[in-house]
Amino acid sequence: MEYHADTMTNAPQFAPEWLIQSWFNSETPLLLSGLRGRVVVLCAFQALCKDSNAYAIPQALRMHATFEPRDVAVVGLHTTFEHHAAITPAVVKAYLHEYRIKFPVGLDMANPQGPIPRTMEAYHMRGTPSLLLIDRHGFIRKHTFGPVDDLRLGAEVGALAQETPAAAGTAPVSLTAAAGLTPAVPESSAA
Amino acid sequence: MEYHADTMTNAPQFAPEWLIQSWFNSETPLLLSGLRGRVVVLCAFQALCKDSNAYAIPQALRMHATFEPRDVAVVGLHTTFEHHAAITPAVVKAYLHEYRIKFPVGLDMANPQGPIPRTMEAYHMRGTPSLLLIDRHGFIRKHTFGPVDDLRLGAEVGALAQETPAAAGTAPVSLTAAAGLTPAVPESSAA
Amino acid sequence: MEYHADTMTNAPQFAPEWLIQSWFNSETPLLLSGLRGRVVVLCAFQALCKDSNAYAIPQALRMHATFEPRDVAVVGLHTTFEHHAAITPAVVKAYLHEYRIKFPVGLDMANPQGPIPRTMEAYHMRGTPSLLLIDRHGFIRKHTFGPVDDLRLGAEVGALAQETPAAAGTAPVSLTAAAGLTPAVPESSAA
Amino acid sequence: MEYHADTMTNAPQFAPEWLIQSWFNSETPLLLSGLRGRVVVLCAFQALCKDSNAYAIPQALRMHATFEPRDVAVVGLHTTFEHHAAITPAVVKAYLHEYRIKFPVGLDMANPQGPIPRTMEAYHMRGTPSLLLIDRHGFIRKHTFGPVDDLRLGAEVGALAQETPAAAGTAPVSLTAAAGLTPAVPESSAA
Repeated sequence: MEYHADTMTNAPQFAPEWLIQSWFNSETPLLLSGLRGRVVVLCAFQALCKDSNAYAIPQALRMHATFEPRDVAVVGLHTTFEHHAAITPAVVKAYLHEYRIKFPVGLDMANPQGPIPRTMEAYHMRGTPSLLLIDRHGFIRKHTFGPVDDLRLGAEVGALAQETPAAAGTAPVSLTAAAGLTPAVPESSAA
Repeated sequence: MEYHADTMTNAPQFAPEWLIQSWFNSETPLLLSGLRGRVVVLCAFQALCKDSNAYAIPQALRMHATFEPRDVAVVGLHTTFEHHAAITPAVVKAYLHEYRIKFPVGLDMANPQGPIPRTMEAYHMRGTPSLLLIDRHGFIRKHTFGPVDDLRLGAEVGALAQETPAAAGTAPVSLTAAAGLTPAVPESSAA
Repeated sequence: MEYHADTMTNAPQFAPEWLIQSWFNSETPLLLSGLRGRVVVLCAFQALCKDSNAYAIPQALRMHATFEPRDVAVVGLHTTFEHHAAITPAVVKAYLHEYRIKFPVGLDMANPQGPIPRTMEAYHMRGTPSLLLIDRHGFIRKHTFGPVDDLRLGAEVGALAQETPAAAGTAPVSLTAAAGLTPAVPESSAA
Repeated sequence: MEYHADTMTNAPQFAPEWLIQSWFNSETPLLLSGLRGRVVVLCAFQALCKDSNAYAIPQALRMHATFEPRDVAVVGLHTTFEHHAAITPAVVKAYLHEYRIKFPVGLDMANPQGPIPRTMEAYHMRGTPSLLLIDRHGFIRKHTFGPVDDLRLGAEVGALAQETPAAAGTAPVSLTAAAGLTPAVPESSAA
């Protein structure tokens, strides 16, 4: 139940479109832009990563069970950045079966130039597990590497889910300074 | 991390004023009505209660550390409903010291007619630990006996904290049906 | 599951008789010397001590459920060394009821000269929770302050329980150097 | 910390030699018969098995850190009985790297006749994780499927480690009836 190792952008950042080579648990390719209007919880993991298995995936499963999908979309991103020869799509598929994961999981697009796949690179992720909260307007409001406290995460996702299109950009009022939600982009800087 | 044993009122209920014989961690007596405008998290516990010690008090401490006091007031209620001869005010005081509890704790007013103290009786609590969420307008939105899931609780408190005076009564949109927040009182039934 | 803060005597030490003002869960006063021939697990705790409640008492209950009483006697020692006005015998009694403790618990004898009760002083305990393993011959083989790893503790108690009168003093062969069992007193030094 | 789902042989059974297609963390092939004289803790697991990852492998790592290798040999057995196409030797290798496993792990020999590999079949394992305790004389003293309590396991391994060649077959005296160690083979039946 610790909370640390945040990697926060100083200024709110628009979430780039993810680049996916194949999807599991989704009949059609999913676009981040297609989820606009919903809060997106993006859980980046690796099938053989100890910390992903120990807490990030269990937490993602709890989030998927807790929040209404029409408001909060939980999406997995399998970022193969090591053990490339071992972690085939069949491994990811078996993993999803064993961990009973029903939410959509995208396999991050391999990068011919190096070991870091494309979405992982575009988001400057430090490793797995990484967690991103993207608001209804597509801005990154939280980006974390490592364990995340359940109570705080629940409050943060709950707060983002309360931001309606009209009230978007309202700073969450309920959390202590350490809460870690980047304020929504101000009107002026969005112009 | 389970979630069960809710005792929910079918209709939203106005939270009665608590009846306290003495306060710890508060220089002046605290009135529930004096906290109107803030979300109140009321944690009812007993110093020698195993489950209070194992999860309810640790969770209350996490809530106190997570939410802004100006929006969310975490308040303890020590309901002495058994072991009356043993649990003196000195025991409660020593307990608060040992568990490093800094939020206000009221000692529920003893009832000459029976073992159940006055606030516990007025709220129909089933035992300890019990948890109540009271919204900014003074309505009981959640009443639970037993363990409460951190992620869901965070989301619920976060949602209640987002209800502004103008938007009060807005049903939280983000949680699954099982979430357990009683809807705020509808306009018509409040007439 | 950490293991630290051992306070080990450099030389094996004969366990002094405990000094108890009253017993719970035992119809007659219990003497340590009366348990000679059995391994004694002595769990020193305080009713309002957070760490006693969080892990030491639950571990003592697991030990009591795991080992044969004829071989391993689990005994609690309530050492009131602070909050003297609060922690009356009625508090200890209520505590044992709430935590469903069935093994014998002695209330350490108050010391008119100071706050540290007599047995706690005689054993040089640093606080609560403290754990002592006393072998079948009455020697202290382990003395720990703070959390103790279940697996290692199980192995240590299991090893001590295997020391028969004939084979007493056999150094346990199975544990890594960090194991923390003081070797039994050598024959020569016992003379 | 529960303890269930034992599959115990009614009579002590001699542990058959394991059949391994390749070894990790061991420069030469390891024979069970070559470990005669030591207690063997055999932990059967699968790289993508949720329960193996959540508790069995962490427990095996704790055992490896707790017991002296010259007395207690912790050995992993990767039993690929499902997801055969996914779980290549490269997956097992990457898994051992990620979980920082340093004890020897054998890859159970594939069976051309069916999905269950050879050692898994010979030992009648029900799935993963399975745990076997084999005594210094090569007899199976415990065979469990599912979670195993640390305290009890520590005591059991500790007790088996105390069985010297001379005293072999001594029934452990310290554990409650539920302990789950199959008695060592009686002298008469060994004849």
